[in-house]
Amino acid sequence: MGRVLVHRLKRLLLGTPLPTAQARHERLDKAPALAIFASDALSSVAYATEEILLVLAAVGAIALSYSLPIGIAIAALIAIVVSSYRQTIMAYPQGGGAYVVSKDNLGTVASLVAAAALLIDYVLTVAVSSAAGIAAVTSAFPALFPFRVWLCAGAVTVISIVNLRGLRESGRIFAVPTYLFVASLFGLIVYGSLGAIFNWIGEAPFPPHPPGLEGVGLFLILRAFAAGCAALTGVEAVSDGVPAFKPPEAVNARIVLGWLGVILISLFLGITYLAYDFGLRPREDETVISQLTRHIFGTGVVYFEVQFVTMLILLLAANTSFADFPRLAFFLARDRFIPRQFGNQGDRLVFSNGIVILGGMAAALLVIFQGNTHALIPLYAVGVFISFTLSQSSMVRRWFRLRGEGWGWRAALNGVGALVTGVVMLTIAVTKFSHGAWIVLLLIPLLVALFLAVHRHYDDVAHQLSLEDFTPPPGLTNVVLVLVGDLHKGVVRAIQYAQTLSPSAKAVYVETDPERTRRLEERWGKWGMGVPLIVLNSPYRSLVGPLMDYIEQVQRQGGDNQIVTIVLPEFLPARWWQQILHNQTALLIKGTFLFRKNVVITDVPYHLSH
Amino acid sequence: MGRVLVHRLKRLLLGTPLPTAQARHERLDKAPALAIFASDALSSVAYATEEILLVLAAVGAIALSYSLPIGIAIAALIAIVVSSYRQTIMAYPQGGGAYVVSKDNLGTVASLVAAAALLIDYVLTVAVSSAAGIAAVTSAFPALFPFRVWLCAGAVTVISIVNLRGLRESGRIFAVPTYLFVASLFGLIVYGSLGAIFNWIGEAPFPPHPPGLEGVGLFLILRAFAAGCAALTGVEAVSDGVPAFKPPEAVNARIVLGWLGVILISLFLGITYLAYDFGLRPREDETVISQLTRHIFGTGVVYFEVQFVTMLILLLAANTSFADFPRLAFFLARDRFIPRQFGNQGDRLVFSNGIVILGGMAAALLVIFQGNTHALIPLYAVGVFISFTLSQSSMVRRWFRLRGEGWGWRAALNGVGALVTGVVMLTIAVTKFSHGAWIVLLLIPLLVALFLAVHRHYDDVAHQLSLEDFTPPPGLTNVVLVLVGDLHKGVVRAIQYAQTLSPSAKAVYVETDPERTRRLEERWGKWGMGVPLIVLNSPYRSLVGPLMDYIEQVQRQGGDNQIVTIVLPEFLPARWWQQILHNQTALLIKGTFLFRKNVVITDVPYHLSH
Repeated sequence: MGRVLVHRLKRLLLGTPLPTAQARHERLDKAPALAIFASDALSSVAYATEEILLVLAAVGAIALSYSLPIGIAIAALIAIVVSSYRQTIMAYPQGGGAYVVSKDNLGTVASLVAAAALLIDYVLTVAVSSAAGIAAVTSAFPALFPFRVWLCAGAVTVISIVNLRGLRESGRIFAVPTYLFVASLFGLIVYGSLGAIFNWIGEAPFPPHPPGLEGVGLFLILRAFAAGCAALTGVEAVSDGVPAFKPPEAVNARIVLGWLGVILISLFLGITYLAYDFGLRPREDETVISQLTRHIFGTGVVYFEVQFVTMLILLLAANTSFADFPRLAFFLARDRFIPRQFGNQGDRLVFSNGIVILGGMAAALLVIFQGNTHALIPLYAVGVFISFTLSQSSMVRRWFRLRGEGWGWRAALNGVGALVTGVVMLTIAVTKFSHGAWIVLLLIPLLVALFLAVHRHYDDVAHQLSLEDFTPPPGLTNVVLVLVGDLHKGVVRAIQYAQTLSPSAKAVYVETDPERTRRLEERWGKWGMGVPLIVLNSPYRSLVGPLMDYIEQVQRQGGDNQIVTIVLPEFLPARWWQQILHNQTALLIKGTFLFRKNVVITDVPYHLSH
Repeated sequence: MGRVLVHRLKRLLLGTPLPTAQARHERLDKAPALAIFASDALSSVAYATEEILLVLAAVGAIALSYSLPIGIAIAALIAIVVSSYRQTIMAYPQGGGAYVVSKDNLGTVASLVAAAALLIDYVLTVAVSSAAGIAAVTSAFPALFPFRVWLCAGAVTVISIVNLRGLRESGRIFAVPTYLFVASLFGLIVYGSLGAIFNWIGEAPFPPHPPGLEGVGLFLILRAFAAGCAALTGVEAVSDGVPAFKPPEAVNARIVLGWLGVILISLFLGITYLAYDFGLRPREDETVISQLTRHIFGTGVVYFEVQFVTMLILLLAANTSFADFPRLAFFLARDRFIPRQFGNQGDRLVFSNGIVILGGMAAALLVIFQGNTHALIPLYAVGVFISFTLSQSSMVRRWFRLRGEGWGWRAALNGVGALVTGVVMLTIAVTKFSHGAWIVLLLIPLLVALFLAVHRHYDDVAHQLSLEDFTPPPGLTNVVLVLVGDLHKGVVRAIQYAQTLSPSAKAVYVETDPERTRRLEERWGKWGMGVPLIVLNSPYRSLVGPLMDYIEQVQRQGGDNQIVTIVLPEFLPARWWQQILHNQTALLIKGTFLFRKNVVITDVPYHLSH
């Protein structure tokens, strides 16, 4: 049967259920922690430089050299954000995600804005990282380029399934590709720079940039800067995950975040400089990293190794959202801002609903945007910078409130962070608005409104159901009616069932054709099990009308505590699709009486064997 | 609330319900009967000539003069089919549709083939007639041409709603446009012919057709003939409806069918001849009838009158299918070849399901084929000729079986009919195959297979449910369990309800968190209504697993006649969409136990007020 097959497939893909007692709290050393929390941030090196060049290339080769000052500005921005977040870590050793920190300091609405921004950004992280990861593959194997959408969707599906199974040994797995990626890119940058300096690699730097910035030029440069800000996504991951570190947690996390900042800035600046120095131009079918590696090492083993680890770290970055999204959804469900289904752990101790929703939305985005990193980038980073700004503003608020040791310069540091990230957020929103950022800016308030509506609803329900000041009615009385349309084994069973519920159960038949009534009454003596048969006349052939009238009459006699139970004989075919050939009556009755007070509908199934 | 609104809308569109006693059996005089049964057949005059010319025009103007001999061949075919059906009327005064006649003489499979062919053709009649009716409008008002798909879909919707209300005075309504159409077209033909003879209307006849028929030419001419055979659709309507005539029914019906044949042949030949004589060429945006009327009368009042009555008769023709399709569906449902819903009369004494399905499919076809008559024609007429052939073959079989007076020449007459319609059917199938007839030829066997599968299923169910040789079990015992996940007003109500079912009802709680269990047990004393609480442990956090184990244990103790009733407290939010925020547990439980024998699930709703 279908159900069994689905069950087997589920077990095959997801594994057997895990008992609650197996939930483990793995604590991480600094080196694997860096690997886990850095993959998202570091992986953006694979596309950030390229996004800057793509915007500049729209004007022409003459503008490409602006990539260098833009890159330096972004590096400075990274330094500021990292310094700010190192303070957040000390303040929130239990984990300082933007939702938690904003809720603590700025109130509900701000925290929901941060949550909406983050949920959107997690989806985009999956989409952008997968698209960029597959771009690394198609750069190496151009024959795969036409299949990139399928490859992207396939990658997201595999990551989703792996996460539904539960990633139990994540630290160790993550360490290898992350460090390989860092080592490979450092090798690329050092070898490339030496080659450029000692001239054993040919170069053709971009023409020097024109002296004055004209009107259009400034907007374009800001847009290139905004595009490059994708490099900052994921920097906040360390501060979200402080409790996963070995003690002293906060100290270790600060150190790891420091390392992360240094590595990120070095790699990003190195790649941006080399792309400038070798005069690389962005191409649709090959990434800048791929062009750079080919130029420096040629298309050999090293080239393929770099492409491979780039793909790996990007897919790992996508994977981090599969931990972050369901965790944030869990917090939101716990605080009753989203449906409570997101608060349930599945068979494998993971938040299955969050994983499925995230994977589905990311796959949909990849299909809509045709697996094109560049098309997705304008939607990206707005959300991240909104959460940065809210998070840093919260910290400022906190310092002013608590006024601990050195609160003045600490507040100033976070204040600079809040200001800078706020300005960058506005820059991104304005320059990318028409390219797709409007979607995100529209979605965030919609999501916040939805969160608030859900919250109001849950509160209201809890209030209506509350037992406080409640006196239960002294006791209910119950009239049991079997609705009969015919006489067969299923009906006989339903009558017998009704007799177990009440010794005074009655059968009700709605007459549409007196001839059929006569035949039914003839057979009732033998098969009616002694239950009285009430025949209701229906001049309009309606089944529901006379039944409704009869029930109203019973309820009027019985008062407020009178329940009417309608027992419906229903036979269940062996195959689900056969259902449409039967039981429309049962559906009709259930639909009609669903919103009727004091009426309970009970199906008594009779199972057919084939 | 939504339900009330839907109900009001339904009443507004469909009117108040009619009592069964109002079902009337209106008997028809010959003149209104002709109007009712002729509209489908006569309306095809509006497009049949055009379809012949369109096929011929594909070769070039040189071929257009073949329309004349083709028209004569089709006229002869009409004469043969009409003569054959006049015999069917005598043999089946109770109504001789192809389904009934084939079932009587050729067996089940042949009758189902006829039924499938007819159902498909009824859908196509609605689509083709609506498209041609709207083409009459857009010929007169070319500005409406871009909106023709919307106009077609709108026309079908209006006809569907009118039929769902029930057409009670159909005879009188139909008489006016049908006779206006006949009179108008006769006027057109007579005035046009006189004008041509006495040369007061300019003419430019087609060039005479080339002497020898070459290979491609023959196929093309057969295809043009096949296209023109659309003129025969609807001829069978009189024989289906014999019981609607005033006595002597069969005699009157024969007379009316004779008239119909004469009028149809005259109009069709007249239009075809004039189109030939005035050298009209088919155009995408104006019908041949419109061109002809403009040419003969100019674009004045007469022109608009002709276009208007043409539209009317075509929409009436579409309307006839709304009686035929549900009636055939009723026969098929009665014989249990299609779901029994098609056998139910709705509030307004009409077979609502058949009307809705027919309208929906016709509208879908019109959208898919962009309201283009010409594109739909290749699908049309195959089904009609299959039913003609089966119907006439049945008559031959019948004469041989019964051997009544003059059976020899009668069998010969029907034999000629069967042979000719069979050959035409093959011609249509072959020449239109690649243009769309393949869809119909594929659909018919699929539908027949479906009919047989449905029939087998219903037979099987009836057998399994039969009370013959059945001894009911001596009596059932019932264990009532309330599934509790929390304590609130809805749960208290469910517990009280369970107490009305059984004095020994128990509550069951599946523990996933010992802390919550403790809190529940603390409050149970006050709110448990004295019902014992059973706590089931769930190491895998599954709700279903431990419950299933417990129920199995109860059933093992109780034996075969032990029923377990699970009472589910469910609260119903005031708005339907709020449902998704709740009650996932109830759904899960119902889904799990649906196919489990001897388990009855009872929802006890608690209605929230806002």
